[in-house]
Amino acid sequence: MDTLLSIIAILVLAKVLGELVERAGYPVLIGEIAAGVILGPSLLGLVAHDQVIETLSTIGVIMLLFVIGCQMNLKLFVSSTARMVVTAVTASAVPICAGFLIGTLLHQPLILSFYIAIILSITSVGIVVPTLVGLNRFNTEIGTTIIGVAVLDDLIALTLYGIFSSMAAGNGISSTDLLVSVGISLLFIIGMATVGRFLIRRIFALSSRASSHEVSYAVALILAITGALLSHIAGLNYVIGAFLAGLLLGDLIRVDRQLFDSLTDSAFGFFVTLFFASVGLVLEITPQNLVSPLIVPMLLTAIGAKILGGYLGSIWFFKDVKSALLVGIGLCPKGDLPLAIGKYALLAGLISNELYTTTVLTVVATIVITPALLKQGFKRSAEPAPPG
Amino acid sequence: MDTLLSIIAILVLAKVLGELVERAGYPVLIGEIAAGVILGPSLLGLVAHDQVIETLSTIGVIMLLFVIGCQMNLKLFVSSTARMVVTAVTASAVPICAGFLIGTLLHQPLILSFYIAIILSITSVGIVVPTLVGLNRFNTEIGTTIIGVAVLDDLIALTLYGIFSSMAAGNGISSTDLLVSVGISLLFIIGMATVGRFLIRRIFALSSRASSHEVSYAVALILAITGALLSHIAGLNYVIGAFLAGLLLGDLIRVDRQLFDSLTDSAFGFFVTLFFASVGLVLEITPQNLVSPLIVPMLLTAIGAKILGGYLGSIWFFKDVKSALLVGIGLCPKGDLPLAIGKYALLAGLISNELYTTTVLTVVATIVITPALLKQGFKRSAEPAPPG
Repeated sequence: MDTLLSIIAILVLAKVLGELVERAGYPVLIGEIAAGVILGPSLLGLVAHDQVIETLSTIGVIMLLFVIGCQMNLKLFVSSTARMVVTAVTASAVPICAGFLIGTLLHQPLILSFYIAIILSITSVGIVVPTLVGLNRFNTEIGTTIIGVAVLDDLIALTLYGIFSSMAAGNGISSTDLLVSVGISLLFIIGMATVGRFLIRRIFALSSRASSHEVSYAVALILAITGALLSHIAGLNYVIGAFLAGLLLGDLIRVDRQLFDSLTDSAFGFFVTLFFASVGLVLEITPQNLVSPLIVPMLLTAIGAKILGGYLGSIWFFKDVKSALLVGIGLCPKGDLPLAIGKYALLAGLISNELYTTTVLTVVATIVITPALLKQGFKRSAEPAPPG
Repeated sequence: MDTLLSIIAILVLAKVLGELVERAGYPVLIGEIAAGVILGPSLLGLVAHDQVIETLSTIGVIMLLFVIGCQMNLKLFVSSTARMVVTAVTASAVPICAGFLIGTLLHQPLILSFYIAIILSITSVGIVVPTLVGLNRFNTEIGTTIIGVAVLDDLIALTLYGIFSSMAAGNGISSTDLLVSVGISLLFIIGMATVGRFLIRRIFALSSRASSHEVSYAVALILAITGALLSHIAGLNYVIGAFLAGLLLGDLIRVDRQLFDSLTDSAFGFFVTLFFASVGLVLEITPQNLVSPLIVPMLLTAIGAKILGGYLGSIWFFKDVKSALLVGIGLCPKGDLPLAIGKYALLAGLISNELYTTTVLTVVATIVITPALLKQGFKRSAEPAPPG
C-alpha cells in the first residue's frame, strides 16, 4: 500500500473510532490504538509499520510530551507543596515495590521486574487532566493534588526509565553503571533546567519577532525535537527532552493562543494519532498473549498499588479517607509513557511480545476503569464541585 | 544522518534563510529552496532526499495547494467577470505560444516545448496574493483582477499539466490520447465540482460536530490528501485534487478561524517548508547548468509574454495603458506549481537536470523581480491606494 494511502487509512479509522470512544466517555487514544490493531498484523494486516510511519509517530510522541509540558504551570510546579511531594513519593514507591515483588513472585529476571515496576509507577498527566476536566473537578483541592502528583510521578518514572534504558543498553548491572546512568540523567535534567532553559527561552522569544507567525510554530517544533534528540544522546528516551522543553516554554507558548492551538490541532489531529495507531500497529495480539498469566496480577497490582500509594501520602494532609482514596484512584490512569516505553523496549528486544501486550492491555484497562471509579467516588465525596 | 536530525537541519536553515529573505522584502520560499540547495548535493551534501522527506514534502505541496484553495472566494470565482476570463485567456495564450515558439527555435522536442509552454503560462496565486498584500493593493480593481486571472490561469495550467503528464506517461501523442487525457481531466474536475463538492462538504460539516477540535484538522487533512490521491488516480498531479478540495471547502474552513490558523501554521511552519527545501535538495547545480543557453531566453520570455498577455486582455476593460501593464506585471510571479511540475518531470525522467535548474532559476527570478517592478508601477499609476 502506498504510504499516503496508509496514512489516510490510519487517520480515517483512528478518528472514527476515537470519536466513538470519546462519545462513550473514554479517552480518544483507546480508539486510535484500536485503529492500529485493526489495520496492523493483529487483524487485517493492511498497513505496514514502515520508516515513514515510524518517523511521523516519533514526531507524534515528541509533540505529545511537549504539549503536555506546555500545559503545566512551572511556577505552581516549583512552589509545589509538601502534600504533592510526599504523595508523589508514596504513590511511586508503593507501585515500584509491588512491581519488583510481582516480578520476583513470577520468577522474572531483575531487568523485567524493573520494567514492570516502572510501568506500575507511571501516572499519565495527559489522561489525568482531561479526565478531571470531564468530571468538572479540575480546579478542586483533590484535582490539583492529583495533577501535581501525576507530574512529579512522571518525572520520577522518566528518571527511572533513563536508568532502565542505560542498564538495558549495558551488559550488566553494576553500581558504577547505576551511578553513571543516574549522573547522566541528572546532568541532562540540570543542564536543561539551567543553560537549556536560558537558551530555549531566548531562541523562542527571538522567533516571536519573526515576520510570519508560522516561524514560531517551526521554532517550537525545532526546540521540542532538539530537546528530544539531546535527551536521546544523553542516553534517555526522546520523550524526556521534549517534555522538559515544553515545561520550560509553557508560559511563553500559552500566551500565544494561536500557536498553542496550532500545536494542539496538528499534534492531536495528525502526529499523535499516528503515534497511538503505531502502538497498535506494532502489537501482535495472539490467543496465547491474551491468556497470559501476567495480565490479571499486572492489572490488579497497577490499580491496587496506585490507590494505596496515593492514599498513604495524601491521608496525612487531607485527614479524610474518601479524599485520600480519590487521590489514589485519580492517579491510576496510565497513558502514552508506558506505551512509549513498552514500544521502545519491545523494538529493542528487551521485553517479549507477551509482556508488551500485557502492558498495553493494562494501560487501556486503567484508562477505561478510572473515569468510572472517579465518577462514583466524587459523588460520595465530601468536597463539593466548584460552581460553574 | 538520522532522519530527525535531517529534518531539524532543514527546518533551522530554511527558517533562518526564509526570515532573512522575507526581511529583504521577498517571499520566504526563496530562502527555503536555498536551504535545500545548501544542505543537498549541490553544496554540502549533508541531507539525503529519502523516503521520509519525500512523503513529508508531498504532504507539504498538498497542504500548500489546499490552503491556497481555501483562501479563494468560490462565489467571486463563479461570478467572475468577463474581464477576468478574457484576461486569463490572453495571459495564458501568449505565454503558451511563446513557449512553443522558444522550444521550436531552440530545437527542443515537442513534449519539452509543451513543458516550457506550461511553465511560462503559470501564475502563482500563492506568491501574487502576499505580494499584493505587502504593497497594500490587495483590494484594488487592479489587485482583484490580478488575483482572479491568476486563479483562472492556475486552473488552465493545471488542466494543461494533466494533459502533459498523461501524454508523457504514454508512448506517443495521438489525438485519441489527447481526447482521453482531456476527458479524464474534465471528468475529474466535473466530478469534484458536483458529487465531490457534496460529499466533501457533508463530511467536513459532520466533523465540526465532533467532540474535539482537532478532528476538524484531521478531516481537512484527510480530504486534502484524498482529493490529491483521487486526482493522481485520474492521471493528474496530486496538487490539482488538493487545490479543488480547498476551493470547495474554503468558506467552511475560513469560518473556523482556529482551524484555518492551525492549517496555515503547520503547513508553512513544517510541511511546506520541507517541500520547498526538497525542491532545493533535488537540485544539482553545476557550472554547466548555470551557463545553460536556456536561461536567458526562458526568463525574458517568461516576463515579456506574461506582461503582453495580461496587457492584451485587460486593456479592453481598463482603457488605461498603465493599469493594463500593471495587471501584466502582477501576473509574472511563478511559485510552487512550476517547481512541483518541474520536480515531478525531473523525477519521472521527462526533463533534463539542466531544464529543471532553468525552471527553478526562472521561478526564483520572477518572484524576486515582480515586487520591485510592481512597486515602481503602482507609484506611477493613476489608481490610488485604498485608505488604511
